[in-house]
Amino acid sequence: MYEVVTLLTDFGDFYPGVMKGVILSIAPEAKVVDICHSVEPQNVLQGAFLLYNSYRFFKNAVHVAVVDPGVGTERKALAVKTKNYVFIAPDNGIAYPSAYEDGIKNIYEIDLSISELVGELSTTFHGRDIFAPAAALAVKGNLWDYCEEIGDMEKLELFDYEIQGNTIRCKVVFVDRFGNVVTNLRARDINAKRFYFKGIEIPLVKTYSNVEIGEPLALIGSFETLELSIRNGNFAEVFDIKSGEEIELEVL
Amino acid sequence: MYEVVTLLTDFGDFYPGVMKGVILSIAPEAKVVDICHSVEPQNVLQGAFLLYNSYRFFKNAVHVAVVDPGVGTERKALAVKTKNYVFIAPDNGIAYPSAYEDGIKNIYEIDLSISELVGELSTTFHGRDIFAPAAALAVKGNLWDYCEEIGDMEKLELFDYEIQGNTIRCKVVFVDRFGNVVTNLRARDINAKRFYFKGIEIPLVKTYSNVEIGEPLALIGSFETLELSIRNGNFAEVFDIKSGEEIELEVL
Amino acid sequence: MYEVVTLLTDFGDFYPGVMKGVILSIAPEAKVVDICHSVEPQNVLQGAFLLYNSYRFFKNAVHVAVVDPGVGTERKALAVKTKNYVFIAPDNGIAYPSAYEDGIKNIYEIDLSISELVGELSTTFHGRDIFAPAAALAVKGNLWDYCEEIGDMEKLELFDYEIQGNTIRCKVVFVDRFGNVVTNLRARDINAKRFYFKGIEIPLVKTYSNVEIGEPLALIGSFETLELSIRNGNFAEVFDIKSGEEIELEVL
Repeated sequence: MYEVVTLLTDFGDFYPGVMKGVILSIAPEAKVVDICHSVEPQNVLQGAFLLYNSYRFFKNAVHVAVVDPGVGTERKALAVKTKNYVFIAPDNGIAYPSAYEDGIKNIYEIDLSISELVGELSTTFHGRDIFAPAAALAVKGNLWDYCEEIGDMEKLELFDYEIQGNTIRCKVVFVDRFGNVVTNLRARDINAKRFYFKGIEIPLVKTYSNVEIGEPLALIGSFETLELSIRNGNFAEVFDIKSGEEIELEVL
Repeated sequence: MYEVVTLLTDFGDFYPGVMKGVILSIAPEAKVVDICHSVEPQNVLQGAFLLYNSYRFFKNAVHVAVVDPGVGTERKALAVKTKNYVFIAPDNGIAYPSAYEDGIKNIYEIDLSISELVGELSTTFHGRDIFAPAAALAVKGNLWDYCEEIGDMEKLELFDYEIQGNTIRCKVVFVDRFGNVVTNLRARDINAKRFYFKGIEIPLVKTYSNVEIGEPLALIGSFETLELSIRNGNFAEVFDIKSGEEIELEVL
Repeated sequence: MYEVVTLLTDFGDFYPGVMKGVILSIAPEAKVVDICHSVEPQNVLQGAFLLYNSYRFFKNAVHVAVVDPGVGTERKALAVKTKNYVFIAPDNGIAYPSAYEDGIKNIYEIDLSISELVGELSTTFHGRDIFAPAAALAVKGNLWDYCEEIGDMEKLELFDYEIQGNTIRCKVVFVDRFGNVVTNLRARDINAKRFYFKGIEIPLVKTYSNVEIGEPLALIGSFETLELSIRNGNFAEVFDIKSGEEIELEVL
């Protein structure tokens, strides 16, 4: 039933390759697809945001999301069955917004004994020892042998921002390779023609080409949230903005 | 007929993962292969050069190349049928040198309504909304339902350099991870035993080991153009050269 | 018999994409899996260490490992048959620790004429011209047509460190994205409760959460060697440690 296994982590290079070895050794029929391995280290919110904006573009997929500052602690390893997917993740909220949106059916805790399929149980790399074999078994259809159904999972709110009068305080959830600053401010809560950021006027436009090259702009990007950009430039660099920051915008 | 879908973009991490979701949802039989996602942002020439030096090593492939500073403007989305491949790309010249070399048969404009297969049409991420579904349909063989044949496509010249007397002015089209400076100067136009660059003599040799470790050298690299290197060192860093620059070489 | 082809290189982006084209053109049935392409340029020891810590998690795999400062010299191109795998690599020791551990059966030199399958023979990119077609033929089962059995291969010792009295001098073989400093000091040779590094006391613990956030720690990581970390921080950055360095630890 499930064929595709997606991987979204903060692991960078190498570690995901080992996970693929584990997955393919157990389930050679799996198609493993990388979504992203450059989530900012231990930024669970960013991982949750990127998963939320990618999971639904896949079909019949097992989504593995591992940004896991709690590895080696008592935090649970989860398998969450939703209407269309299985999510495999640490119980820190990373999979919650996606699973909730798709429709949670059952929440399971994965038993650490699943690591017997790998032959290793480290305290630092559950991506290899727990989450990879779990994904492989989800593809094979017998993950549930290593699972116990539990009642609940950690929640995480992607869209916590404040709008007070003319002031918006929202979060930078992603800075992409072009220096586009992706915020968590949803289109539905934007009711303005321009913003002021650090005293600079930034028009809200439809597309990059609505301003001159080198000019700043705001638009509703492909995440359906507010993005700040410089046309053919790098907003994040010019304004020294990092992923994870809170920013303040004025609407006048 | 086509099975492999290659991706070459300036998207970095994450966005290509979403494209893979779209492609595999429409054409689960596709084999998606990454060529490169670290093209310098919006450097169409570099994208064209890297595509030109990789497309022919694949068989039965749909090549998707998206370096797209004009996304959201009126620039067309193209599907180009050539002797052996289909190229899917914005109409900015990125696919032209490759398509021309392989032999252009038909040039089509992709209708934006193809985004109905994704359920999204952003102004910023046509990789997801237009090019990915187009690639998937090319694999399935019914891309042409969403296409209209047009007469022409934007051209782009990879090998525009000047040779005047003893002076060569060529472009740095790629700086690789080793700091090798890859130029667009073709082997066929090189008729020298050594070059002078910023006053330094650089011998033209067959292979790195023809000079001592730490010494500069020039050779005809795997792109069949001139490359400048330091044996076991980093030429680009030492001489502060960036991709996209024009450089001047003397032949004495 | 072999279906998976793994790639481990210091090539960064782009070059591995070309290798995949070559492999899939010759052996469309191959499943190509990236282990890592960000080995520190020309750091053969790091390549060997990462291969040694990943190869066994795959089944029925052809492992291609190319960190190759000697490309274009007389160094041999090898195919090594072991109990469970085929290793394809330059003869510089990179594949030796893995092949030795799995059990070497036959060592072959690959003839450069194998490049006729690619139609190119550069002096700089044997990943494309030699190692990729070799991997594809290993999948197809007829690599041996292009091979001659030889008696021996270059050796490489992963675990060369010195323990003299209370002083340990070992090597940093990998710095991961979190700034964890992975050394080559094996668990079996560790007999301490704490280390002193540059005068700072670092406790040996089971897992990150055994110390407070921001505090340094040492543990036996997923490589089964000593790692130095800062909980939710970046040890390598704080202590300015680079991969390849030798470090000195005191046990008091």
